[in-house]
Amino acid sequence: MWRQATDTEALRAALSGATVYRQRTLRLFGIPESEIAETLRAAEAEDGSLDGLEITTCLRRGEIEVVTRFGPDAEPRYDALVAAVRERDAGTLCSEGGRTIDQIVADALRADGLTIATAESCTGGLLAGRLTDLAGSSDYVLGGLVVYSNRAKSELAGVDPALIERVGAVSAEVAEALADGARDRLGADLGVGITGVAGPGGGTEAKPVGFVCLSAASADGRRITRSVQLPGGRDDVRDRSTTVAMHLVRRLLHGEGERAPIAA
Amino acid sequence: MWRQATDTEALRAALSGATVYRQRTLRLFGIPESEIAETLRAAEAEDGSLDGLEITTCLRRGEIEVVTRFGPDAEPRYDALVAAVRERDAGTLCSEGGRTIDQIVADALRADGLTIATAESCTGGLLAGRLTDLAGSSDYVLGGLVVYSNRAKSELAGVDPALIERVGAVSAEVAEALADGARDRLGADLGVGITGVAGPGGGTEAKPVGFVCLSAASADGRRITRSVQLPGGRDDVRDRSTTVAMHLVRRLLHGEGERAPIAA
Repeated sequence: MWRQATDTEALRAALSGATVYRQRTLRLFGIPESEIAETLRAAEAEDGSLDGLEITTCLRRGEIEVVTRFGPDAEPRYDALVAAVRERDAGTLCSEGGRTIDQIVADALRADGLTIATAESCTGGLLAGRLTDLAGSSDYVLGGLVVYSNRAKSELAGVDPALIERVGAVSAEVAEALADGARDRLGADLGVGITGVAGPGGGTEAKPVGFVCLSAASADGRRITRSVQLPGGRDDVRDRSTTVAMHLVRRLLHGEGERAPIAA
Repeated sequence: MWRQATDTEALRAALSGATVYRQRTLRLFGIPESEIAETLRAAEAEDGSLDGLEITTCLRRGEIEVVTRFGPDAEPRYDALVAAVRERDAGTLCSEGGRTIDQIVADALRADGLTIATAESCTGGLLAGRLTDLAGSSDYVLGGLVVYSNRAKSELAGVDPALIERVGAVSAEVAEALADGARDRLGADLGVGITGVAGPGGGTEAKPVGFVCLSAASADGRRITRSVQLPGGRDDVRDRSTTVAMHLVRRLLHGEGERAPIAA
């Protein structure tokens, strides 16, 4: 009945006259919100105008989402905006087509026929949970280790107890050992290790609440390791850590990372 | 300044005349929402009235939350309501004081000085993530295994490959083997195993999407194993599975469960 009602000449004519708005999403990571505002101002100054573009920016799980709506006439202006963002914020622009980082990582793993495994301390399984959010993720997620206790770090993930003793459980070195342990124990192509201080307790002056070390390692010996200071409370730190980890994996899958021995 | 402003005789007098409403929360698990509505009707019929009680019920993560607000005069009526719920829905009333299942499990583990570990397939780390949501959870969570692939189930959690071959990865038997494997590999007092069909693919007639097998096992040989059919999509099934698991752990910690060999 609905089909009958809509399948009329009159409605088609009315619809054909309507403006069809487009909506496009950019996602950036590792850039403060003020910086993207600056880029928008620069784009406006350069190209004369952002008229006809309805732009909203939003901080979501540690990424900046730039959603733009525009009519067909404004498409060239949108293209100019994207070009400006590409130029100014190249290293941080991670998605132009609206795909989430989760989807980007999943697509890349699938396209390359690679598998992934995790070894998590402060995130307690949330990264594995996030990686397996998507339907069909069993094609590339083999599994993971949640190594909350130091004994579990050593016995399950193979982290040398002497290393933990020497540099502490929250350290770049242990994050790297966890990434290697995840790869090794699960027999995966990629491994990710996370260790940090989620809070509210456990922080020190050198390693305060929000201090998190992450490492992603690939079978060909490449590795990206980062120590970051994340804002917010326990939930924020844990969730944001999984976002940072997803971006390390994305960069590793895009060929970044150095063939280097474990960080000194 | 705020303290000065509020610390006056006039305000205290005004406040002392105000009605102080109480708010109490009951939580029930394993009962349909229609059933609690029936209990409320029965309580009303029996005690004449629920007047003065403002009751809202809400389904939250698979639990029913009954929130009641009332003035001091209605306290006896609230007590009668709680008594009615206790009598009719004893097995499903899991919290009278407003504590969440997460807090109840955490408090019980801490009070008994017990540790816990997980081995998860379909939930992919979400149960470990949920157990470590609470600050201080490193006191009782040792860690967990995310065993998405069958190889990981066997190599990491020690599930006999012949068992998987015989009864399938999604089975009560494998859930029990996962619970045992979690306890054994992490050296924990309690182990929880989860395996199921989160969907949208992978379902069969015998084991459709939403079919999940869970087991909780304790060091003294007690065990509770359940196979459930959960409603909703992939996210719902995964999240609801963690709620079911938390309740199995709660019941195990309250002394339930049988000392029995692995289910035939």
